[in-house]
Amino acid sequence: MKLLEDKILKEGKVLNGDVLKVDGFLNHRLDVALLSELGKDIAETQKDCGANLILTVESSGIAIAFAAAEFMKLPVLVAKKNKSSNISDGVYSSPVFSYTHQTQNNVVVSKEYLGKGDKVLVVDDFLASGNAAIGLLSLIEQAGATAVGFVAAIEKEYQGGRALIEKKGVPVYSLARIVKMNAGEIVFD
Amino acid sequence: MKLLEDKILKEGKVLNGDVLKVDGFLNHRLDVALLSELGKDIAETQKDCGANLILTVESSGIAIAFAAAEFMKLPVLVAKKNKSSNISDGVYSSPVFSYTHQTQNNVVVSKEYLGKGDKVLVVDDFLASGNAAIGLLSLIEQAGATAVGFVAAIEKEYQGGRALIEKKGVPVYSLARIVKMNAGEIVFD
Repeated sequence: MKLLEDKILKEGKVLNGDVLKVDGFLNHRLDVALLSELGKDIAETQKDCGANLILTVESSGIAIAFAAAEFMKLPVLVAKKNKSSNISDGVYSSPVFSYTHQTQNNVVVSKEYLGKGDKVLVVDDFLASGNAAIGLLSLIEQAGATAVGFVAAIEKEYQGGRALIEKKGVPVYSLARIVKMNAGEIVFD
Repeated sequence: MKLLEDKILKEGKVLNGDVLKVDGFLNHRLDVALLSELGKDIAETQKDCGANLILTVESSGIAIAFAAAEFMKLPVLVAKKNKSSNISDGVYSSPVFSYTHQTQNNVVVSKEYLGKGDKVLVVDDFLASGNAAIGLLSLIEQAGATAVGFVAAIEKEYQGGRALIEKKGVPVYSLARIVKMNAGEIVFD
């Protein structure tokens, strides 16, 4: 999506060779008008996916998921991150390792809000190694629900997450797909 | 706001006498259509506040802040919660004690996105004791910016947060104002 690619080229910063800092518009300061446009694009590209629910994970997935949900007229389920190893009976839980923070979290949703028969579109801000994505797909599997698609605003294709998701039979769509990145350049697919 | 009060009466659950569980529509599963209506109400009631920025805190403030920002055509700055005592030079930071989780966090924003001259409307999901609110207002003060208002979706008036905010000269608006609550009843102002 050209609008997002242009914004990344204009305002994104590549740190330490591999971290794309987009906190001026995507996940710290939110460019709400831009995010609405991203939501509209998601709604258009996913209009035939059959989802009755969008699943995302706190906290940087919430805004993009919400923007898509408004156009798709769907509710959003926000998976919580939880450091505790005490998991209550009332939730589905899956471990996720964060390379950025070098920490292990659980992603958790209440069983009350995800169940058999749900058709779930997963929406997140980033797709890189796919760790978070696989954790979210596991929640859907545990609930006996179906993942109908995975959408990321920005994909770092070379980190391999897409392949892991597609291997589970879940289609992947990203609005900006980075195939190569370093301090001097960002190359899109 | 009657729409929100009715939703709370219909789906809210009072736990342990004082915890209002609204995670079916406000902060775990998001009722996006309802949140859009709340955003519209905030935009209408705050249309003369003069804000150029909305400030909220992750993660349960993001959706309501985003919904308001869409109608107000403003960006949102999302304060991050940070357990670490290592605060970098590039941020404003303020300690916040959470009664719900019995933990101390810092709320943190990048200096890059909040500065002198900014007129800031703070939007959050809950106002209770006012701890989080005071932490957010402190970030605004540190930046030399001005808080033009504080908005909460749900206020537990009897916990005293409103008075703390108003003492700082900041007007408070809540969409549903609970004056009394127990397992058997929820009473609005």
